[in-house]
Amino acid sequence: MATATIGNSEFDRDTAVVRRAPGVYDAHLSAGWTIIQAVNGGYLLALMGRALGDALPHPDPFSVTAHYLTASVPGPAVIRTEVVRTGRTMSTGTARLIQFAEDGTEIERLRVLAAYGDLGALPDDVRTAAKPPAIPPYEHCLGPEAAPGGRPAISGSTAITERLALRLDPATAGWAVGAPSGKGEMRAWFGLADGREPDPLSLLLTVDALPPTAFDLGLSGWVPTVELTAHIRHRPAPGPLRVAITTRNLAGGFLEEDAEVWDSQDRLVAQSRQLARTVLHG
Amino acid sequence: MATATIGNSEFDRDTAVVRRAPGVYDAHLSAGWTIIQAVNGGYLLALMGRALGDALPHPDPFSVTAHYLTASVPGPAVIRTEVVRTGRTMSTGTARLIQFAEDGTEIERLRVLAAYGDLGALPDDVRTAAKPPAIPPYEHCLGPEAAPGGRPAISGSTAITERLALRLDPATAGWAVGAPSGKGEMRAWFGLADGREPDPLSLLLTVDALPPTAFDLGLSGWVPTVELTAHIRHRPAPGPLRVAITTRNLAGGFLEEDAEVWDSQDRLVAQSRQLARTVLHG
Repeated sequence: MATATIGNSEFDRDTAVVRRAPGVYDAHLSAGWTIIQAVNGGYLLALMGRALGDALPHPDPFSVTAHYLTASVPGPAVIRTEVVRTGRTMSTGTARLIQFAEDGTEIERLRVLAAYGDLGALPDDVRTAAKPPAIPPYEHCLGPEAAPGGRPAISGSTAITERLALRLDPATAGWAVGAPSGKGEMRAWFGLADGREPDPLSLLLTVDALPPTAFDLGLSGWVPTVELTAHIRHRPAPGPLRVAITTRNLAGGFLEEDAEVWDSQDRLVAQSRQLARTVLHG
Repeated sequence: MATATIGNSEFDRDTAVVRRAPGVYDAHLSAGWTIIQAVNGGYLLALMGRALGDALPHPDPFSVTAHYLTASVPGPAVIRTEVVRTGRTMSTGTARLIQFAEDGTEIERLRVLAAYGDLGALPDDVRTAAKPPAIPPYEHCLGPEAAPGGRPAISGSTAITERLALRLDPATAGWAVGAPSGKGEMRAWFGLADGREPDPLSLLLTVDALPPTAFDLGLSGWVPTVELTAHIRHRPAPGPLRVAITTRNLAGGFLEEDAEVWDSQDRLVAQSRQLARTVLHG
């Protein structure tokens, strides 16, 4: 099978948008990126990023904030964008993801506020104290076939699992066999299953594609995202990505989840933070 | 002199908004919160937070994202809010800060997207791996009177200095005498000079009130904020706050600056991250 390419892959097809009018796009939320029945938040972020990349004069997402308002469902959707400001090196816009009730009523799913620029136009200087996550080699990490069954996030019972080449660091996979570390950490190798290489848009998927850190804290319920902000810091090199997510503070039923994404050349290509709610079982 | 109180202080007067129509507020950007000539970003964030707290049915900012579009100037302004969604426990809104050119043209300064809730309604559970910053006692930290002069951020040449009771950890104040640590760290005790105690709204000021971490990296230029997101995690107890800000990654002329704010009871009350641009001298 030929390897998928940027522009010709499952990810690109499922985040495609069709301009219907200036700033207004038709989209179709694919059932292929669901976790149980919920559409993955990172997939939705990338879809919105695609529309904004068309609506704004700059190509790359620099900072994207999404508020998750109501639960998206697979099927048709409309994205309405607004250009807030256009500058020489950066531009700012908003986007709304709309679906429709049976009676035709509009239901807003996501509200996005974003700044775009041109990653290719930035100088090459890097001064960083950040280090790539310590994670075992790819072949020592755990894919879905390693799961003992029944745990949805890595067991293959959710559609998104088939589209991702995700391999968890065994040190952060104990929750899948009932032995969470309690540290609130998750580390993984990340790729797209069809071999499509990463780009700034797919990084918006990557920052919200791992099982929630809450699992590693021993929580087993649902952890819906309230708000997620992603910063894309560099155009990723081809090859597998490493993702590290951490939660330090769970309080009052809310937690933050920080993600870092590193490319094959050891560059920090994306940072994100989300505020999520813990909806505990029983 | 009587100590100022929440609702009756410089901060409260200077962030006051007057409802002119549903969702539309008149405001006055005070010259008292400027750094050289720029209006402080945290002050603007708090002002927008005040308007949204009136426009939305929930009282407290949970997550507030601001994009800084153009440079605000002291003087009159209008804030236009929109209610995006109202839920039982949380609501979401946007706000735009507008000033006017001499010919009456509207100029948008800030675009804000925020989720509000009720911090007082949250359960008391806390599970945290986060630790308060190691910072010397207040009396061993450095106020503006310790500065050798000429350095605006702690020398008193900027108006905001008089309104803050800010004391820098000597370990992160070397930049003021030409000896930055190079670590990209800044730690300080924080209060309002008139004694007004912290609340969720003033935390929006606190997250962007320290000298930029870029100074500790040895950069001396301007570091304008592109985007800042603050999460308010707990209602702060009375007493001085401790703030730690860090920059790990400077690349392509952009850096992230993360802030944590701790209250007198050792609770993590706010987290923020901003994406800023480095505009270097010469």
